[in-house]
Amino acid sequence: MNDRLRRQIDFLLEIDKLKSVFRRNYIADGSRAENDAEHSWHFATAAMILAGHAKAPVDVSRVVAMGLIHDIVEIDAGDTFIYDDAAKLDQREREERAAERLFGMLPPDQGASLLALWREFEEDSTPEARFARSIDRLVAIILNYRTGGRAWRENRVPAEQIMQINSRIEKGSPALWDFVRELIENAVKQGFIE
Amino acid sequence: MNDRLRRQIDFLLEIDKLKSVFRRNYIADGSRAENDAEHSWHFATAAMILAGHAKAPVDVSRVVAMGLIHDIVEIDAGDTFIYDDAAKLDQREREERAAERLFGMLPPDQGASLLALWREFEEDSTPEARFARSIDRLVAIILNYRTGGRAWRENRVPAEQIMQINSRIEKGSPALWDFVRELIENAVKQGFIE
Repeated sequence: MNDRLRRQIDFLLEIDKLKSVFRRNYIADGSRAENDAEHSWHFATAAMILAGHAKAPVDVSRVVAMGLIHDIVEIDAGDTFIYDDAAKLDQREREERAAERLFGMLPPDQGASLLALWREFEEDSTPEARFARSIDRLVAIILNYRTGGRAWRENRVPAEQIMQINSRIEKGSPALWDFVRELIENAVKQGFIE
Repeated sequence: MNDRLRRQIDFLLEIDKLKSVFRRNYIADGSRAENDAEHSWHFATAAMILAGHAKAPVDVSRVVAMGLIHDIVEIDAGDTFIYDDAAKLDQREREERAAERLFGMLPPDQGASLLALWREFEEDSTPEARFARSIDRLVAIILNYRTGGRAWRENRVPAEQIMQINSRIEKGSPALWDFVRELIENAVKQGFIE
């Protein structure tokens, strides 16, 4: 087998570990926590379905690609809960090292291209990145709402923090933010969150 | 919320069930069976990484989209093991009904477009569909090989059947078929399969 294919297959086997990185939130039926691989699939599919709601025109295939690879760094760096300010302090540094190792397994041209795509997502610097980050939050919120706010309650996240952190959805999609804001308000009304 | 967004969100919550449809094969560390949502993520990511090995030039974003949606029908129809000839008899009919129900939840234009994409994948009728079907098989095979052929052994699939069914990988990618054929030969040599 040629070296290029060998590196690609090794990478695909290495990222299989994403199926064992668990998040704080639950799948929709509440039976268990969601893992990063499932979440990445849900994100990429939602990006495709909801692209028409992006604030600015986006190249949907780039948003989908961001969804597929955005959490791969968590194989080394672990999942950082979006509402955990302490863990977020050194998150970027841990994830940057992980990105260099993992994307570095690929053929150099392909690794460099995916590393750049991952950094673009992290830096929130393009319409695609902003829309992708909106979708990342949206898919977590609809699952949290469906499970009665369980992950929010278990981690004692107050409504103001949920509202504040997720208000950035507006940067990628005012329409989706309108929907999410209403969902959070309903969650408060129904006593799902404090 | 407008009707379009309502339908899209309902669809995204419905397809969350894919996280609870389990396949015969195991994740790479052998700790548990793989579910369809994780597999779809692995498929879509592999399509992106391996696109350069397609037999004919392909629109990668369409192959990725096929990966994301190809198994959604299994929410209603269940997973059909590729080596189970009996279950395969009425598979297409069960899956066609499922596709109509599930994609029918979406706004009509979007549902029709994804239903057409799913049928294209099933019918193996374009370079994208042929490459997508090669990737679908490849990701299962590398996991089976990594886990010492466990799913093959547990389901008593003989080497000839594995070779014959997977030889269709060549239609989408001769390069990937060369790699897979060698992997199956090694699996036989090492006593992973009968």
